[in-house]
Amino acid sequence: MTGASTAVDISKIRGAQKTQVEDRVAVEEPLELQLCSRIATDSAAKSISITMRTPGDDIDLALGFLAGEAIITHLDEVVSAEHCGAADPETGYRNTVRIELNPHVEFDLDRLQRHFYTTSSCGVCGKTSIEALRVGGRSPVDDNFNISRERLLALPEMLRGRQKVFDATGGLHAAAAFDRHGNIIVAREDVGRHNAVDKVIGSLLRDKRLPAGDLGLLVSGRASFELMQKAWVAGMPLLAAVSAPSSLAVKLAQESGMTLVGFLRDPGFNIYAGAQRIVEDE
Amino acid sequence: MTGASTAVDISKIRGAQKTQVEDRVAVEEPLELQLCSRIATDSAAKSISITMRTPGDDIDLALGFLAGEAIITHLDEVVSAEHCGAADPETGYRNTVRIELNPHVEFDLDRLQRHFYTTSSCGVCGKTSIEALRVGGRSPVDDNFNISRERLLALPEMLRGRQKVFDATGGLHAAAAFDRHGNIIVAREDVGRHNAVDKVIGSLLRDKRLPAGDLGLLVSGRASFELMQKAWVAGMPLLAAVSAPSSLAVKLAQESGMTLVGFLRDPGFNIYAGAQRIVEDE
Repeated sequence: MTGASTAVDISKIRGAQKTQVEDRVAVEEPLELQLCSRIATDSAAKSISITMRTPGDDIDLALGFLAGEAIITHLDEVVSAEHCGAADPETGYRNTVRIELNPHVEFDLDRLQRHFYTTSSCGVCGKTSIEALRVGGRSPVDDNFNISRERLLALPEMLRGRQKVFDATGGLHAAAAFDRHGNIIVAREDVGRHNAVDKVIGSLLRDKRLPAGDLGLLVSGRASFELMQKAWVAGMPLLAAVSAPSSLAVKLAQESGMTLVGFLRDPGFNIYAGAQRIVEDE
Repeated sequence: MTGASTAVDISKIRGAQKTQVEDRVAVEEPLELQLCSRIATDSAAKSISITMRTPGDDIDLALGFLAGEAIITHLDEVVSAEHCGAADPETGYRNTVRIELNPHVEFDLDRLQRHFYTTSSCGVCGKTSIEALRVGGRSPVDDNFNISRERLLALPEMLRGRQKVFDATGGLHAAAAFDRHGNIIVAREDVGRHNAVDKVIGSLLRDKRLPAGDLGLLVSGRASFELMQKAWVAGMPLLAAVSAPSSLAVKLAQESGMTLVGFLRDPGFNIYAGAQRIVEDE
């Protein structure tokens, strides 16, 4: 697992003791994602998002974001994906990724823009808003996936074992894709929980493993609507979270036929939807 | 502290046992924020953000978001702030807040829109991006604020004592404003950590306590750049986080002259910047 941490001088207070020590913190830097397509009459790249992320696996992060927004579904829709611009002279990080899409890829920039600055009357209330937040999922999800209790319970410890930057800083979220045998296929860390998931999904896209009906998604924190939706769009039939799910994550799981597991901590867990995919130990 | 949770039927797995029980999860619903001003030639309200939040204190959330973006600094810039539109027939929640600003309030919708869809060449890299993310802070922050180690250490337990929805669901972030005597002035919960902070700052704005040079901000999770910036813009000289800070949170604290405390857990904590505001026990 890649990632990055940096040294800082801190005052460590323990009871009445105060000592000056060097400690490490997780790196947080902005990443700008630009899209361009040769079919556009204006050839300028369009900046579609800026996210605060931990540098590393930036291309996966960008690809996973686009896959999660259902803008791309296959790697062959991507002409190129690379950093652009000079490195920050102070930190050395390159903080812009530019992706060129195949001319045939159509995407709705207005929908991407949904969070900001649309003109609307008050009609956009209640269910309409939540519908506007939804991107197209692959429903019904693959129904052959299942995993035993024992293998599911072993996953958080396996993920922790691969969190190198967390060990150094105590400050990173993690996400992983796992198969029905309880093997972790890919694991990523980031200061942003959405980013960790995007990095996992981008990696699966690059490996041509999407839609991933044979994989589940594990997250180190809570299960929100957005994380549930990312798993759904990636075709993953199960989301397992170490902490609590939200009401809308439960609802989306129920409606999409997915499995949602929360509070995944030895010796147990809760199943909020799709209990048929959790099977007895073999 | 207000908040909301809802009942769900779950399968509870504990070792080899599986039981069907009713459990509670934190409610997550979208909130759309609309701005309007009578000076505009088009009188339509503009939707400037949709955030996934836990219903409750919606007006504070909206006001705090605007204060954090430095769009408003005083309550008298707000003509009205209220829910609009019908309640969601299924959930009963009203998910749109419309705020009318005084005609003299100018705001840069382009800057608000910064996360999405601007046309740019690759010049927007590195430091330029992070500068674009910054909103105007009140620097230098008030320098009379300080708090003793003992009082600081007591805060997380006091905050937990006020987290009613967390107790029911295990699934909420919390934030609080506290004074130098270690009193919690206002505490709020939300599925989104930014929202919990916005609700606190919105409440302070309504009470005409901004800029809050006499208050510190406590958050139940990690300290990111964005949370640090919200405290800075609110004029709060100290941010204390129960978990780890990021590199950029540390940098912003150093540059703005603020105090940043992390890993605030009995029997100690770490000071990443501004150690002069943490004083010996009285």
